[in-house]
Amino acid sequence: MFPQFELLDIYGPLEFFGMLQDAVSISMIAQVPGEVTSSQGPKGVAEIALAEVADLDVLLVPGGWGTRALVQDDGFLALLRAAAKKAKFVASICTGSALLAKAGILDGKSATSNKRVFDWVTSQGPSINWVRKARWVEDGNIFTSSGVTAGMDMTLGLIERLLGREHSIQVAKGAEYIWNEDKTVDPFA
Amino acid sequence: MFPQFELLDIYGPLEFFGMLQDAVSISMIAQVPGEVTSSQGPKGVAEIALAEVADLDVLLVPGGWGTRALVQDDGFLALLRAAAKKAKFVASICTGSALLAKAGILDGKSATSNKRVFDWVTSQGPSINWVRKARWVEDGNIFTSSGVTAGMDMTLGLIERLLGREHSIQVAKGAEYIWNEDKTVDPFA
Repeated sequence: MFPQFELLDIYGPLEFFGMLQDAVSISMIAQVPGEVTSSQGPKGVAEIALAEVADLDVLLVPGGWGTRALVQDDGFLALLRAAAKKAKFVASICTGSALLAKAGILDGKSATSNKRVFDWVTSQGPSINWVRKARWVEDGNIFTSSGVTAGMDMTLGLIERLLGREHSIQVAKGAEYIWNEDKTVDPFA
Repeated sequence: MFPQFELLDIYGPLEFFGMLQDAVSISMIAQVPGEVTSSQGPKGVAEIALAEVADLDVLLVPGGWGTRALVQDDGFLALLRAAAKKAKFVASICTGSALLAKAGILDGKSATSNKRVFDWVTSQGPSINWVRKARWVEDGNIFTSSGVTAGMDMTLGLIERLLGREHSIQVAKGAEYIWNEDKTVDPFA
């Protein structure tokens, strides 16, 4: 989490992961733990400092207006890079891929992002194969999604990779979610 | 908000309302203000006491496991009834309709809810026309949705009613959301 994070970039994916309660433990991480205000106004709570993150199975990175300041914050980017190195999977939602790009985590990889601010995001990482038409992109252990709600579709793809397709289907049904499961179909490109 | 609220029941709709920043002001309300823990684990922050709610344009009521205790909490139900009376529109997501039902707010109205726990929800209000097959239901100034992500589709319907269809389309595009806009189509019924 960071100030001016996009509300649904975080809580959409965490709704789906949270439905796997026996298999998943969620930690809320921020550079400075405590209450963090979203772009939309509501506040969430981070409990763990980014500097103190241990090995994670999945590091989820949201987007939002706050990314505009963070791409210029070398201290934050170094912490993000370190946390990503210790994670088995790294996944970003929306403009979260701008943070991964600027931190060098996407170099040589394929990735995507929000389509409305695609030019700004892609300018953060010139050595990346930016995919303009994709709901989400998987490249090895790195998942990046398009804007906001595309992160929910990506999360189900990530759950499929981690735990198997039956879990993704079960989670989507539990949330009465109509999964846009073909990651190459992108009406917003 | 209340302990064990369903994460996305709140933050899905608030993402969409929050994108209308010039037109909308969001207040986070709970019986006891402060940090509130969701069913999925992450905590949100409520700033206003339910007892002190002034006139609202829209009162949004989430579902979640916390509803099981609250349908037996007469003090809470009285506060909810009072807040609903002062709101121009009342909208519930998922099992939030069980709270509205038990508080008497839905008597004589058509409504829907989560399909997996439909029998439990409908037992909270026998004088209601429960609609089993609906993504969401509109009855006058009362909107009720099916499970979790159906609340996002309902919210776009509510934004259409409040501000006009062009705003719903604009919000859906901004969030790269594929709106399931026909409220009668319900694959989970």
